[in-house]
Amino acid sequence: MPEGTPIFPREPVITVRAPAIQAQLLETYMLLEFNHQSLIATKASRICRAAEGRAVMEFGSRRAQGIAGAVVGARAAYIGGCCGTACTVSDPLYGVKALGTMAHSWVQMFPSEYEAFVSYCRSYPTNAVLLVDTYDSLRSGVPNAIRAFNEVLRPLGITSCGIRFDSGDMAYLTKQARKMLDEAGWPGCRITVSNSLDEWLIAGLLRQGAQIDAFGVGERLITSKSSPVFGGVYKLCAVEDENGEIVPKIKISENVGKITNPGFKKLCRFYSRSSGMAEADYICLRHERVDDTKPLEICDPDARWKRKTMEDFISRELLVPVFEKGELVYELPSLEEIRSYCAAQLATLWPEVKRFDNPHGYYVDLSGELMALKDAMLAARGRAPGKEEGR
Amino acid sequence: MPEGTPIFPREPVITVRAPAIQAQLLETYMLLEFNHQSLIATKASRICRAAEGRAVMEFGSRRAQGIAGAVVGARAAYIGGCCGTACTVSDPLYGVKALGTMAHSWVQMFPSEYEAFVSYCRSYPTNAVLLVDTYDSLRSGVPNAIRAFNEVLRPLGITSCGIRFDSGDMAYLTKQARKMLDEAGWPGCRITVSNSLDEWLIAGLLRQGAQIDAFGVGERLITSKSSPVFGGVYKLCAVEDENGEIVPKIKISENVGKITNPGFKKLCRFYSRSSGMAEADYICLRHERVDDTKPLEICDPDARWKRKTMEDFISRELLVPVFEKGELVYELPSLEEIRSYCAAQLATLWPEVKRFDNPHGYYVDLSGELMALKDAMLAARGRAPGKEEGR
Repeated sequence: MPEGTPIFPREPVITVRAPAIQAQLLETYMLLEFNHQSLIATKASRICRAAEGRAVMEFGSRRAQGIAGAVVGARAAYIGGCCGTACTVSDPLYGVKALGTMAHSWVQMFPSEYEAFVSYCRSYPTNAVLLVDTYDSLRSGVPNAIRAFNEVLRPLGITSCGIRFDSGDMAYLTKQARKMLDEAGWPGCRITVSNSLDEWLIAGLLRQGAQIDAFGVGERLITSKSSPVFGGVYKLCAVEDENGEIVPKIKISENVGKITNPGFKKLCRFYSRSSGMAEADYICLRHERVDDTKPLEICDPDARWKRKTMEDFISRELLVPVFEKGELVYELPSLEEIRSYCAAQLATLWPEVKRFDNPHGYYVDLSGELMALKDAMLAARGRAPGKEEGR
Repeated sequence: MPEGTPIFPREPVITVRAPAIQAQLLETYMLLEFNHQSLIATKASRICRAAEGRAVMEFGSRRAQGIAGAVVGARAAYIGGCCGTACTVSDPLYGVKALGTMAHSWVQMFPSEYEAFVSYCRSYPTNAVLLVDTYDSLRSGVPNAIRAFNEVLRPLGITSCGIRFDSGDMAYLTKQARKMLDEAGWPGCRITVSNSLDEWLIAGLLRQGAQIDAFGVGERLITSKSSPVFGGVYKLCAVEDENGEIVPKIKISENVGKITNPGFKKLCRFYSRSSGMAEADYICLRHERVDDTKPLEICDPDARWKRKTMEDFISRELLVPVFEKGELVYELPSLEEIRSYCAAQLATLWPEVKRFDNPHGYYVDLSGELMALKDAMLAARGRAPGKEEGR
């Protein structure tokens, strides 16, 4: 997630039409929640994609930026694809499955590692994931885990269990451990790893042939360490005059990326009719009718010479009414529905757009009418010295 | 703040002695709060030091990681040296002064920039800080600000006011604006800048001779963007056996930085008797008596050959009792006291330790007795294959 390349840049994901004071009161809080949750869901999605179907558990609470960073962050991580969280309070609050393995302190509290493992297997026979790196992973941890599995789980007929590495060379350790477990008759023992992982490290481990079934990912997920700022903004784009007419407004800037798109707008996503893949997002004025039965020219807002003609596409409006006159008019989806929607939408993006480094930029283009309005408003601000600023 | 170089690494800033279940319940929440608040206070301190005495306002709420990231983060930023925050709720909650300037939307809502400025000056004559980059900073914004100051503030005898730039080349713009303001008779007009600033950008602007009186710093402060993870840990270092004896415990790791210091410990800071500067932190076992009237050898826990003899120093114990048998026994300092203590302690650190890039590592060393205990416990874990793990 290099800076400035979120998957869908410059989208009006939210439109607020309200008396100025009310709209203004919402600004900071709405931005904070949208930016934070989008940030963590995006990072989680990247990490889960790197894991190629293996389970990813969110383990970052202790390094989260504040309590909501941990609790709301765990929910966002679940939406992005994690299978659960060690932030236990997110389970009763939001229904994010609480997961975890043993702690080093459990091992340390017993006179020996072996006794700690036996005791854990007796307490949690159907979910015995033993942390094997407290003293010496391959010489002590894994052999003691196998002894404990043999002694406690084997007589119960349990074949499913696990070990976790939290330090050391994960590629080497997991390959060695897999052999030791298989040779000892524990092919059903799953191997989990954790230790400052992210999408690049996970992809690297899998390339190296590491034998990993699940990942616990903490600090680099819950803070989105590689890119901890999600830069959504909230900008005034139109006002209603005394006659109820909508007057578009623009903000100009020396930084072209900070120039706003004027007017009261809507957002569509265009899918290829043949492949079903998302080809572009399209911002137009609210009154414009989008006709997907004939070719449509869309305009790049920055690279002005770039125009693309969409053909054979299906348009879907993305904005839905949530509040109307202060009333909630939207049926809130369940957490599972949100997670499924996220996965389904991500599946419509070409892999090139989802690549971790130097992804292809997804098109977020403007209608010809919106582009003409923007150009006219920029031209009207001719920048003559001391020029009186009119509408 | 390159990874792994917090100013005081490896300190036991907190010691918890409690029944295992109680100590375990505290773990995640305590780590979360300590890590987050230490992170933001550290980043704020760096940014404020770069500003060399100029005011730094915390402006990051909208990009914070969750609501506590914003609100608690604003308090931590104040402790680190910021003069206030745009997170208004932190003012009634914690007494962090609420500060801010106007928004772009204020300017856009009026028919002209000039009218927006006049209206703002009339509403806030004693605190008129006008945002001048909505349309064209030097051709429109600054001239309109001067006209509004002349028209509204001059007749009231007010000479103190301000402008803010939120985009563009801050070095160039502020130098030009300073000239225009001075020539127009507004030497008392302060110039504030904001726009994804951090300690490196601020230091660069000042080196370039930018004419800046105050900084608004948002996303890179409130997320500590350059290093968003503060890696504090909470480790079991001793247990009490049935006879009430304290038995030290160790956790070994393939990653040497993850090997813990065993035993029930305390922490002292050694100051030079002549300069008053902090020379080292010193971790020893709780029962050890630290005598600062004679030379004392201290040991580097990683570079084993490095031993340093402290002479002519004053020792101060850093840990104070906060809870005893469930009762709060500590008089909580006020926010101002915490902020002053932080500034006073930072003043005892040599500049080399506080340098932004490649700082000199501050010594956090062990006592000879603690080092001997650690060595003996490491030796006892001789790593023989299948070796039974004893105490």
